[in-house]
Amino acid sequence: MSEPADDLAARIRRLEDREAIRELHNQYCFIQDHGHQYRREEDVRAFLELCAPDFVWVNSPDGTRAHRGHEEVAVYLRTIWARFDDCMHYFHNLSIAFESDDFARGRSSFEAVGDIDGESFVAAGYYEDEYVRTPAGWRFSLHREVPFFFVKQSEGWAGPKPAIMSEWLKNRPS
Amino acid sequence: MSEPADDLAARIRRLEDREAIRELHNQYCFIQDHGHQYRREEDVRAFLELCAPDFVWVNSPDGTRAHRGHEEVAVYLRTIWARFDDCMHYFHNLSIAFESDDFARGRSSFEAVGDIDGESFVAAGYYEDEYVRTPAGWRFSLHREVPFFFVKQSEGWAGPKPAIMSEWLKNRPS
Amino acid sequence: MSEPADDLAARIRRLEDREAIRELHNQYCFIQDHGHQYRREEDVRAFLELCAPDFVWVNSPDGTRAHRGHEEVAVYLRTIWARFDDCMHYFHNLSIAFESDDFARGRSSFEAVGDIDGESFVAAGYYEDEYVRTPAGWRFSLHREVPFFFVKQSEGWAGPKPAIMSEWLKNRPS
Repeated sequence: MSEPADDLAARIRRLEDREAIRELHNQYCFIQDHGHQYRREEDVRAFLELCAPDFVWVNSPDGTRAHRGHEEVAVYLRTIWARFDDCMHYFHNLSIAFESDDFARGRSSFEAVGDIDGESFVAAGYYEDEYVRTPAGWRFSLHREVPFFFVKQSEGWAGPKPAIMSEWLKNRPS
Repeated sequence: MSEPADDLAARIRRLEDREAIRELHNQYCFIQDHGHQYRREEDVRAFLELCAPDFVWVNSPDGTRAHRGHEEVAVYLRTIWARFDDCMHYFHNLSIAFESDDFARGRSSFEAVGDIDGESFVAAGYYEDEYVRTPAGWRFSLHREVPFFFVKQSEGWAGPKPAIMSEWLKNRPS
Repeated sequence: MSEPADDLAARIRRLEDREAIRELHNQYCFIQDHGHQYRREEDVRAFLELCAPDFVWVNSPDGTRAHRGHEEVAVYLRTIWARFDDCMHYFHNLSIAFESDDFARGRSSFEAVGDIDGESFVAAGYYEDEYVRTPAGWRFSLHREVPFFFVKQSEGWAGPKPAIMSEWLKNRPS
Protein backbone atom coordinates (compact mmCIF):
# COMPACT_ATOMS: atom_id res chain seq x y z
CA MET A 1 0.00 0.00 0.00
CA SER A 2 1.33 3.38 -0.93
CA GLU A 3 2.24 5.99 1.66
CA PRO A 4 -0.04 9.06 1.64
CA ALA A 5 1.41 12.06 -0.19
CA ASP A 6 1.19 14.12 3.01
CA ASP A 7 3.58 11.75 4.78
CA LEU A 8 5.98 11.81 1.83
CA ALA A 9 5.90 15.61 1.86
CA ALA A 10 6.79 15.64 5.58
CA ARG A 11 9.78 13.35 4.98
CA ILE A 12 10.96 15.53 2.08
CA ARG A 13 10.62 18.64 4.22
CA ARG A 14 12.78 17.08 6.94
CA LEU A 15 15.51 16.37 4.37
CA GLU A 16 15.22 19.95 3.07
CA ASP A 17 15.43 21.21 6.65
CA ARG A 18 18.73 19.34 7.11
CA GLU A 19 20.10 21.02 3.98
CA ALA A 20 18.90 24.43 5.18
CA ILE A 21 20.62 23.96 8.55
CA ARG A 22 23.85 22.83 6.85
CA GLU A 23 23.63 25.98 4.77
CA LEU A 24 23.45 28.08 7.96
CA HIS A 25 26.79 26.56 8.95
CA ASN A 26 28.28 27.12 5.48
CA GLN A 27 27.37 30.80 5.63
CA TYR A 28 28.50 31.06 9.25
CA CYS A 29 31.99 30.03 8.13
CA PHE A 30 32.16 32.24 5.03
CA ILE A 31 30.85 35.32 6.85
CA GLN A 32 33.14 34.78 9.84
CA ASP A 33 36.11 34.37 7.47
CA HIS A 34 35.22 37.61 5.69
CA GLY A 35 34.59 39.41 8.97
CA HIS A 36 37.90 38.34 10.48
CA GLN A 37 39.72 39.65 7.41
CA TYR A 38 37.79 42.82 6.52
CA ARG A 39 35.78 43.69 9.71
CA ARG A 40 33.05 45.44 7.74
CA GLU A 41 29.61 46.37 9.07
CA GLU A 42 28.08 44.46 6.17
CA ASP A 43 29.73 41.32 7.59
CA VAL A 44 28.08 42.00 10.96
CA ARG A 45 24.71 42.43 9.27
CA ALA A 46 25.17 39.32 7.11
CA PHE A 47 25.96 37.29 10.23
CA LEU A 48 22.90 38.58 12.10
CA GLU A 49 20.71 37.56 9.15
CA LEU A 50 21.58 33.95 10.05
CA CYS A 51 20.26 34.49 13.57
CA ALA A 52 16.79 34.48 15.14
CA PRO A 53 15.85 37.76 16.90
CA ASP A 54 16.59 36.33 20.36
CA PHE A 55 19.84 34.65 19.28
CA VAL A 56 22.41 33.95 22.00
CA TRP A 57 26.15 33.36 21.52
CA VAL A 58 27.67 31.51 24.47
CA ASN A 59 31.39 31.05 25.20
CA SER A 60 31.09 29.11 28.44
CA PRO A 61 29.46 25.84 29.49
CA ASP A 62 27.51 27.60 32.27
CA GLY A 63 26.21 30.42 30.08
CA THR A 64 28.02 33.17 31.99
CA ARG A 65 30.03 34.44 29.03
CA ALA A 66 27.04 35.08 26.78
CA HIS A 67 25.97 37.71 24.26
CA ARG A 68 22.18 37.99 24.07
CA GLY A 69 20.31 39.48 21.12
CA HIS A 70 21.50 41.14 17.92
CA GLU A 71 22.93 44.28 19.51
CA GLU A 72 25.15 42.47 22.00
CA VAL A 73 26.26 39.98 19.36
CA ALA A 74 27.15 42.83 16.97
CA VAL A 75 29.36 44.39 19.65
CA TYR A 76 30.99 41.03 20.31
CA LEU A 77 31.69 40.39 16.61
CA ARG A 78 33.32 43.81 16.16
CA THR A 79 35.46 43.21 19.25
CA ILE A 80 36.57 39.72 18.29
CA TRP A 81 37.23 40.48 14.62
CA ALA A 82 39.44 43.43 15.56
CA ARG A 83 41.73 41.01 17.43
CA PHE A 84 42.55 38.85 14.38
CA ASP A 85 44.60 39.44 11.24
CA ASP A 86 42.47 36.83 9.46
CA CYS A 87 40.99 33.37 9.95
CA MET A 88 39.39 30.55 7.96
CA HIS A 89 36.66 28.45 9.62
CA TYR A 90 35.58 24.87 8.85
CA PHE A 91 32.84 22.78 10.40
CA HIS A 92 32.86 18.98 10.40
CA ASN A 93 30.77 16.04 11.66
CA LEU A 94 27.54 18.07 11.81
CA SER A 95 24.93 16.00 13.65
CA ILE A 96 21.38 17.46 13.63
CA ALA A 97 18.59 16.20 15.89
CA PHE A 98 15.06 17.53 15.49
CA GLU A 99 13.00 18.02 18.64
CA SER A 100 9.99 19.23 16.68
CA ASP A 101 9.19 20.34 13.14
CA ASP A 102 10.46 23.80 14.00
CA PHE A 103 13.32 23.26 16.46
CA ALA A 104 16.56 21.30 16.19
CA ARG A 105 19.87 20.93 17.96
CA GLY A 106 23.24 20.47 16.28
CA ARG A 107 26.65 19.32 17.35
CA SER A 108 29.70 19.68 15.14
CA SER A 109 33.45 19.87 15.30
CA PHE A 110 35.26 22.97 14.11
CA GLU A 111 38.71 23.97 13.02
CA ALA A 112 40.01 27.47 12.45
CA VAL A 113 43.36 28.57 11.01
CA GLY A 114 44.61 32.10 10.75
CA ASP A 115 46.97 34.63 12.19
CA ILE A 116 46.84 36.95 15.14
CA ASP A 117 49.50 39.56 15.91
CA GLY A 118 51.60 38.10 13.09
CA GLU A 119 51.59 34.53 14.49
CA SER A 120 50.01 31.54 12.76
CA PHE A 121 47.45 29.85 15.00
CA VAL A 122 45.28 26.75 14.87
CA ALA A 123 42.05 26.19 16.78
CA ALA A 124 39.71 23.23 17.18
CA GLY A 125 36.70 22.35 19.27
CA TYR A 126 32.97 21.79 19.19
CA TYR A 127 30.00 23.90 18.21
CA GLU A 128 26.72 23.24 20.00
CA ASP A 129 23.87 24.97 18.22
CA GLU A 130 20.13 25.39 18.35
CA TYR A 131 18.05 26.24 15.30
CA VAL A 132 14.50 27.48 14.87
CA ARG A 133 12.28 27.65 11.83
CA THR A 134 11.17 31.26 11.33
CA PRO A 135 8.85 32.67 8.64
CA ALA A 136 12.06 33.53 6.72
CA GLY A 137 13.56 30.04 7.09
CA TRP A 138 15.86 28.28 9.58
CA ARG A 139 17.97 30.49 11.83
CA PHE A 140 20.48 29.97 14.65
CA SER A 141 18.83 30.56 18.02
CA LEU A 142 21.91 29.57 20.04
CA HIS A 143 25.59 29.10 19.24
CA ARG A 144 27.93 27.70 21.89
CA GLU A 145 31.67 27.20 21.40
CA VAL A 146 33.52 24.54 23.37
CA PRO A 147 37.24 24.93 22.67
CA PHE A 148 39.66 22.00 22.51
CA PHE A 149 42.70 24.12 21.65
CA PHE A 150 43.56 27.59 20.37
CA VAL A 151 47.35 27.75 20.11
CA LYS A 152 50.25 29.12 18.14
CA GLN A 153 51.06 26.70 15.35
CA SER A 154 54.72 26.83 16.42
CA GLU A 155 53.86 25.62 19.94
CA GLY A 156 51.28 22.89 19.27
CA TRP A 157 48.40 21.74 21.45
CA ALA A 158 49.89 19.13 23.79
CA GLY A 159 48.84 19.32 27.45
CA PRO A 160 45.63 19.72 29.43
CA LYS A 161 42.54 20.74 27.49
CA PRO A 162 41.29 23.21 26.59
CA ALA A 163 44.78 24.36 25.57
CA ILE A 164 44.55 28.12 25.07
CA MET A 165 47.54 30.34 24.34
CA SER A 166 48.40 32.56 27.28
CA GLU A 167 48.42 35.72 25.13
CA TRP A 168 44.70 35.14 24.43
CA LEU A 169 43.68 34.35 28.01
CA LYS A 170 45.34 37.49 29.38
CA ASN A 171 43.05 39.78 27.43
CA ARG A 172 40.15 37.62 26.33
CA PRO A 173 36.86 39.16 25.16
CA SER A 174 34.03 37.68 27.21
CA MET B 1 2.60 11.38 -16.05
CA SER B 2 3.20 11.35 -12.34
CA GLU B 3 5.60 8.92 -10.74
CA PRO B 4 3.91 6.32 -8.49
CA ALA B 5 4.09 7.15 -4.77
CA ASP B 6 5.94 3.88 -4.12
CA ASP B 7 8.80 5.01 -6.34
CA LEU B 8 8.90 8.41 -4.66
CA ALA B 9 9.02 6.71 -1.27
CA ALA B 10 11.98 4.58 -2.38
CA ARG B 11 13.88 7.67 -3.53
CA ILE B 12 13.14 9.45 -0.23
CA ARG B 13 14.31 6.41 1.72
CA ARG B 14 17.61 6.39 -0.17
CA LEU B 15 18.17 10.04 0.76
CA GLU B 16 17.29 9.27 4.39
CA ASP B 17 19.70 6.32 4.28
CA ARG B 18 22.51 8.66 3.20
CA GLU B 19 21.75 10.93 6.16
CA ALA B 20 21.67 7.94 8.53
CA ILE B 21 25.07 6.74 7.29
CA ARG B 22 26.54 10.24 7.63
CA GLU B 23 25.23 10.24 11.18
CA LEU B 24 27.12 6.99 11.89
CA HIS B 25 30.30 8.83 10.93
CA ASN B 26 29.39 11.88 13.04
CA GLN B 27 28.90 9.69 16.10
CA TYR B 28 32.02 7.65 15.28
CA CYS B 29 34.05 10.86 15.57
CA PHE B 30 32.38 12.19 18.73
CA ILE B 31 32.58 8.85 20.54
CA GLN B 32 36.19 8.27 19.50
CA ASP B 33 37.07 11.80 20.68
CA HIS B 34 35.43 11.14 24.04
CA GLY B 35 36.99 7.70 24.34
CA HIS B 36 40.49 8.98 23.59
CA GLN B 37 40.12 11.60 26.33
CA TYR B 38 38.18 9.78 29.07
CA ARG B 39 38.56 6.04 28.20
CA ARG B 40 35.27 5.12 29.86
CA GLU B 41 33.42 1.84 29.41
CA GLU B 42 30.35 3.84 28.39
CA ASP B 43 32.39 5.12 25.43
CA VAL B 44 33.17 1.52 24.43
CA ARG B 45 29.50 0.63 24.65
CA ALA B 46 28.42 3.73 22.73
CA PHE B 47 30.86 2.86 19.95
CA LEU B 48 29.64 -0.74 19.72
CA GLU B 49 26.07 0.52 19.35
CA LEU B 50 27.14 1.93 15.99
CA CYS B 51 28.28 -1.53 14.88
CA ALA B 52 26.51 -4.59 13.49
CA PRO B 53 26.96 -7.77 15.59
CA ASP B 54 29.60 -9.16 13.21
CA PHE B 55 31.44 -5.84 12.86
CA VAL B 56 35.12 -6.01 11.84
CA TRP B 57 37.76 -3.29 12.36
CA VAL B 58 40.69 -3.71 9.98
CA ASN B 59 44.05 -1.94 10.18
CA SER B 60 45.72 -3.57 7.19
CA PRO B 61 44.94 -3.81 3.47
CA ASP B 62 45.17 -7.63 3.60
CA GLY B 63 42.91 -8.03 6.63
CA THR B 64 45.62 -9.55 8.84
CA ARG B 65 45.46 -6.86 11.52
CA ALA B 66 41.75 -7.25 12.23
CA HIS B 67 39.45 -7.18 15.26
CA ARG B 68 36.36 -9.33 14.68
CA GLY B 69 33.15 -8.95 16.66
CA HIS B 70 32.20 -6.74 19.59
CA GLU B 71 34.43 -8.40 22.19
CA GLU B 72 37.63 -8.13 20.18
CA VAL B 73 36.79 -4.57 19.15
CA ALA B 74 36.14 -3.60 22.79
CA VAL B 75 39.60 -4.91 23.75
CA TYR B 76 41.16 -3.01 20.85
CA LEU B 77 39.43 0.27 21.77
CA ARG B 78 40.55 0.03 25.40
CA THR B 79 44.12 -0.66 24.24
CA ILE B 80 44.27 2.13 21.71
CA TRP B 81 42.57 4.76 23.87
CA ALA B 82 45.03 4.09 26.71
CA ARG B 83 47.87 5.12 24.39
CA PHE B 84 46.57 8.64 23.73
CA ASP B 85 46.29 11.76 25.86
CA ASP B 86 43.42 12.94 23.66
CA CYS B 87 42.42 13.23 20.02
CA MET B 88 39.82 14.94 17.83
CA HIS B 89 38.58 13.13 14.70
CA TYR B 90 37.12 14.61 11.51
CA PHE B 91 35.80 12.85 8.41
CA HIS B 92 35.68 14.50 4.99
CA ASN B 93 34.68 13.69 1.40
CA LEU B 94 32.30 10.87 2.41
CA SER B 95 31.27 8.99 -0.74
CA ILE B 96 28.52 6.38 -0.22
CA ALA B 97 27.64 3.74 -2.85
CA PHE B 98 24.64 1.46 -2.33
CA GLU B 99 24.98 -2.13 -3.50
CA SER B 100 21.46 -2.97 -2.41
CA ASP B 101 18.71 -1.41 -0.33
CA ASP B 102 20.37 -2.78 2.78
CA PHE B 103 24.11 -2.66 2.09
CA ALA B 104 26.43 0.20 1.17
CA ARG B 105 30.12 0.98 0.97
CA GLY B 106 31.73 4.26 1.96
CA ARG B 107 35.05 5.94 1.31
CA SER B 108 36.10 9.06 3.16
CA SER B 109 39.18 11.00 4.16
CA PHE B 110 39.99 11.52 7.80
CA GLU B 111 42.10 13.81 9.92
CA ALA B 112 42.93 13.45 13.57
CA VAL B 113 44.75 15.90 15.86
CA GLY B 114 45.71 15.28 19.44
CA ASP B 115 48.56 14.49 21.75
CA ILE B 116 50.35 11.35 22.75
CA ASP B 117 53.03 11.19 25.43
CA GLY B 118 52.91 14.99 25.64
CA GLU B 119 53.62 15.52 21.92
CA SER B 120 51.19 17.14 19.46
CA PHE B 121 50.46 14.85 16.53
CA VAL B 122 48.54 15.04 13.26
CA ALA B 123 47.14 12.09 11.34
CA ALA B 124 45.41 11.76 7.97
CA GLY B 125 44.27 8.97 5.69
CA TYR B 126 41.25 7.16 4.35
CA TYR B 127 38.39 5.27 5.92
CA GLU B 128 36.87 2.43 3.90
CA ASP B 129 33.59 1.34 5.46
CA GLU B 130 30.73 -1.05 4.90
CA TYR B 131 27.26 -0.45 6.30
CA VAL B 132 24.23 -2.70 6.74
CA ARG B 133 20.64 -1.88 7.47
CA THR B 134 19.59 -3.70 10.64
CA PRO B 135 16.18 -3.71 12.36
CA ALA B 136 17.58 -0.93 14.57
CA GLY B 137 18.85 1.17 11.66
CA TRP B 138 22.11 1.47 9.70
CA ARG B 139 25.24 0.13 11.36
CA PHE B 140 28.94 -0.20 10.47
CA SER B 141 29.72 -3.77 9.39
CA LEU B 142 33.35 -3.03 8.47
CA HIS B 143 35.75 -0.18 9.22
CA ARG B 144 39.16 -0.13 7.53
CA GLU B 145 41.79 2.55 8.14
CA VAL B 146 44.34 3.35 5.46
CA PRO B 147 46.87 5.79 6.93
CA PHE B 148 48.58 8.52 4.92
CA PHE B 149 50.54 9.92 7.85
CA PHE B 150 50.58 9.84 11.64
CA VAL B 151 53.42 12.08 12.76
CA LYS B 152 54.57 14.53 15.39
CA GLN B 153 53.40 17.99 14.44
CA SER B 154 56.95 19.26 15.00
CA GLU B 155 58.38 16.80 12.45
CA GLY B 156 55.84 16.98 9.61
CA TRP B 157 54.83 14.29 7.10
CA ALA B 158 57.34 14.62 4.25
CA GLY B 159 58.73 11.38 2.85
CA PRO B 160 57.43 7.98 1.75
CA LYS B 161 53.83 7.19 2.66
CA PRO B 162 52.40 6.04 4.92
CA ALA B 163 54.59 8.24 7.12
CA ILE B 164 54.25 6.85 10.65
CA MET B 165 56.26 8.12 13.62
CA SER B 166 58.84 5.56 14.75
CA GLU B 167 57.65 5.72 18.38
CA TRP B 168 54.28 4.38 17.26
CA LEU B 169 55.61 1.62 15.00
CA LYS B 170 57.89 0.23 17.75
CA ASN B 171 54.98 -0.66 19.98
CA ARG B 172 51.93 -0.57 17.76
CA PRO B 173 48.69 -2.29 18.80
CA SER B 174 47.66 -4.71 16.07
CA MET C 1 -4.72 19.30 0.65
CA SER C 2 -1.98 17.04 -0.59
CA GLU C 3 0.80 18.31 -2.80
CA PRO C 4 0.74 16.87 -6.35
CA ALA C 5 3.17 14.00 -6.91
CA ASP C 6 4.91 15.98 -9.66
CA ASP C 7 5.87 18.67 -7.17
CA LEU C 8 7.11 16.09 -4.69
CA ALA C 9 9.20 14.49 -7.43
CA ALA C 10 10.79 17.86 -8.26
CA ARG C 11 11.72 18.41 -4.60
CA ILE C 12 13.21 14.92 -4.37
CA ARG C 13 15.20 15.51 -7.54
CA ARG C 14 16.66 18.71 -6.10
CA LEU C 15 17.82 16.80 -3.02
CA GLU C 16 19.31 14.09 -5.23
CA ASP C 17 21.02 16.79 -7.30
CA ARG C 18 22.68 18.13 -4.13
CA GLU C 19 23.99 14.65 -3.34
CA ALA C 20 25.25 14.23 -6.91
CA ILE C 21 27.13 17.53 -6.75
CA ARG C 22 28.64 16.61 -3.38
CA GLU C 23 29.77 13.37 -4.97
CA LEU C 24 31.56 15.35 -7.71
CA HIS C 25 33.58 17.03 -4.96
CA ASN C 26 34.26 13.72 -3.19
CA GLN C 27 35.65 12.23 -6.39
CA TYR C 28 37.54 15.44 -7.20
CA CYS C 29 39.45 15.01 -3.94
CA PHE C 30 40.12 11.28 -4.27
CA ILE C 31 41.25 11.54 -7.89
CA GLN C 32 43.44 14.57 -7.19
CA ASP C 33 45.00 12.72 -4.24
CA HIS C 34 45.73 9.69 -6.43
CA GLY C 35 47.00 11.85 -9.27
CA HIS C 36 49.37 13.82 -7.04
CA GLN C 37 50.84 10.56 -5.73
CA TYR C 38 50.91 8.32 -8.82
CA ARG C 39 50.54 10.73 -11.79
CA ARG C 40 48.91 8.09 -14.00
CA GLU C 41 47.04 8.76 -17.24
CA GLU C 42 44.07 6.89 -15.77
CA ASP C 43 43.92 9.60 -13.07
CA VAL C 44 43.79 12.29 -15.78
CA ARG C 45 40.99 10.42 -17.54
CA ALA C 46 39.08 9.83 -14.28
CA PHE C 47 39.27 13.55 -13.50
CA LEU C 48 38.02 14.57 -16.95
CA GLU C 49 35.03 12.25 -16.51
CA LEU C 50 33.89 14.64 -13.76
CA CYS C 51 33.97 17.55 -16.22
CA ALA C 52 31.59 18.83 -18.89
CA PRO C 53 33.11 18.98 -22.42
CA ASP C 54 33.69 22.74 -22.19
CA PHE C 55 35.05 22.60 -18.63
CA VAL C 56 37.34 25.46 -17.57
CA TRP C 57 39.85 25.43 -14.69
CA VAL C 58 40.69 28.96 -13.52
CA ASN C 59 43.55 29.96 -11.21
CA SER C 60 42.95 33.71 -11.19
CA PRO C 61 40.07 35.99 -10.27
CA ASP C 62 40.16 37.66 -13.72
CA GLY C 63 40.24 34.41 -15.70
CA THR C 64 43.67 35.04 -17.23
CA ARG C 65 45.29 31.91 -15.80
CA ALA C 66 42.74 29.48 -17.26
CA HIS C 67 42.79 26.03 -18.85
CA ARG C 68 39.92 25.60 -21.30
CA GLY C 69 38.60 22.23 -22.43
CA HIS C 70 39.74 18.67 -21.70
CA GLU C 71 43.02 18.82 -23.63
CA GLU C 72 44.32 21.94 -21.90
CA VAL C 73 43.18 20.66 -18.50
CA ALA C 74 44.93 17.31 -19.11
CA VAL C 75 48.20 19.15 -19.83
CA TYR C 76 47.73 21.25 -16.70
CA LEU C 77 47.06 18.21 -14.48
CA ARG C 78 50.18 16.39 -15.75
CA THR C 79 52.24 19.55 -15.12
CA ILE C 80 50.94 20.20 -11.65
CA TRP C 81 51.01 16.59 -10.45
CA ALA C 82 54.65 16.28 -11.51
CA ARG C 83 55.54 19.09 -9.09
CA PHE C 84 54.25 17.29 -5.97
CA ASP C 85 55.46 14.30 -4.00
CA ASP C 86 51.90 13.71 -2.80
CA CYS C 87 48.88 15.59 -1.45
CA MET C 88 45.56 14.93 0.27
CA HIS C 89 42.60 17.21 -0.51
CA TYR C 90 39.55 18.01 1.64
CA PHE C 91 36.55 20.19 0.87
CA HIS C 92 34.43 21.82 3.58
CA ASN C 93 31.41 24.15 3.90
CA LEU C 94 30.03 23.29 0.44
CA SER C 95 27.22 25.74 -0.37
CA ILE C 96 25.24 24.94 -3.55
CA ALA C 97 22.85 27.41 -5.18
CA PHE C 98 20.71 26.33 -8.13
CA GLU C 99 20.11 28.89 -10.87
CA SER C 100 17.94 26.47 -12.85
CA ASP C 101 17.12 22.78 -12.83
CA ASP C 102 20.28 22.12 -14.81
CA PHE C 103 22.81 24.68 -13.58
CA ALA C 104 24.19 25.41 -10.13
CA ARG C 105 27.01 27.31 -8.49
CA GLY C 106 29.04 26.11 -5.51
CA ARG C 107 31.34 27.72 -2.99
CA SER C 108 33.43 25.67 -0.58
CA SER C 109 36.54 25.89 1.52
CA PHE C 110 39.43 23.57 0.86
CA GLU C 111 42.48 22.28 2.66
CA ALA C 112 45.37 20.32 1.20
CA VAL C 113 48.29 18.69 3.01
CA GLY C 114 51.22 16.99 1.36
CA ASP C 115 54.86 17.31 0.48
CA ILE C 116 56.75 18.97 -2.29
CA ASP C 117 60.52 18.66 -2.79
CA GLY C 118 60.69 16.82 0.55
CA GLU C 119 58.99 19.60 2.55
CA SER C 120 55.64 19.26 4.32
CA PHE C 121 53.18 21.90 3.15
CA VAL C 122 49.68 23.03 4.05
CA ALA C 123 47.26 24.86 1.77
CA ALA C 124 43.83 26.39 2.28
CA GLY C 125 41.43 28.54 0.32
CA TYR C 126 38.15 28.55 -1.54
CA TYR C 127 36.75 26.66 -4.48
CA GLU C 128 34.21 28.45 -6.67
CA ASP C 129 32.52 25.95 -8.99
CA GLU C 130 29.82 25.76 -11.59
CA TYR C 131 27.97 22.55 -12.37
CA VAL C 132 25.75 21.50 -15.27
CA ARG C 133 23.38 18.59 -15.63
CA THR C 134 24.42 16.54 -18.66
CA PRO C 135 22.75 13.41 -20.09
CA ALA C 136 25.33 11.43 -18.06
CA GLY C 137 24.65 13.34 -14.82
CA TRP C 138 26.04 16.42 -13.07
CA ARG C 139 29.48 17.60 -14.17
CA PHE C 140 31.83 20.46 -13.27
CA SER C 141 31.66 23.18 -15.92
CA LEU C 142 34.00 25.56 -14.07
CA HIS C 143 36.47 25.18 -11.21
CA ARG C 144 38.13 28.26 -9.75
CA GLU C 145 40.69 28.19 -6.95
CA VAL C 146 41.12 31.18 -4.65
CA PRO C 147 44.10 30.54 -2.39
CA PHE C 148 44.33 31.74 1.21
CA PHE C 149 47.75 30.18 1.86
CA PHE C 150 50.08 27.57 0.42
CA VAL C 151 53.11 27.42 2.71
CA LYS C 152 55.73 25.17 4.23
CA GLN C 153 54.35 23.70 7.43
CA SER C 154 57.55 24.78 9.19
CA GLU C 155 57.03 28.43 8.24
CA GLY C 156 53.28 28.90 8.83
CA TRP C 157 50.88 31.25 7.08
CA ALA C 158 51.13 34.54 8.99
CA GLY C 159 51.25 37.71 6.91
CA PRO C 160 49.40 39.19 3.94
CA LYS C 161 47.08 36.87 2.05
CA PRO C 162 47.28 34.96 -0.14
CA ALA C 163 50.44 33.70 1.56
CA ILE C 164 52.26 31.63 -1.06
CA MET C 165 55.71 30.14 -0.52
CA SER C 166 58.34 31.88 -2.64
CA GLU C 167 59.61 28.58 -4.09
CA TRP C 168 56.21 28.04 -5.69
CA LEU C 169 55.78 31.57 -7.03
CA LYS C 170 59.19 31.51 -8.74
CA ASN C 171 58.23 28.67 -11.04
CA ARG C 172 54.46 28.49 -10.86
CA PRO C 173 52.46 26.67 -13.55
CA SER C 174 49.88 29.04 -15.02
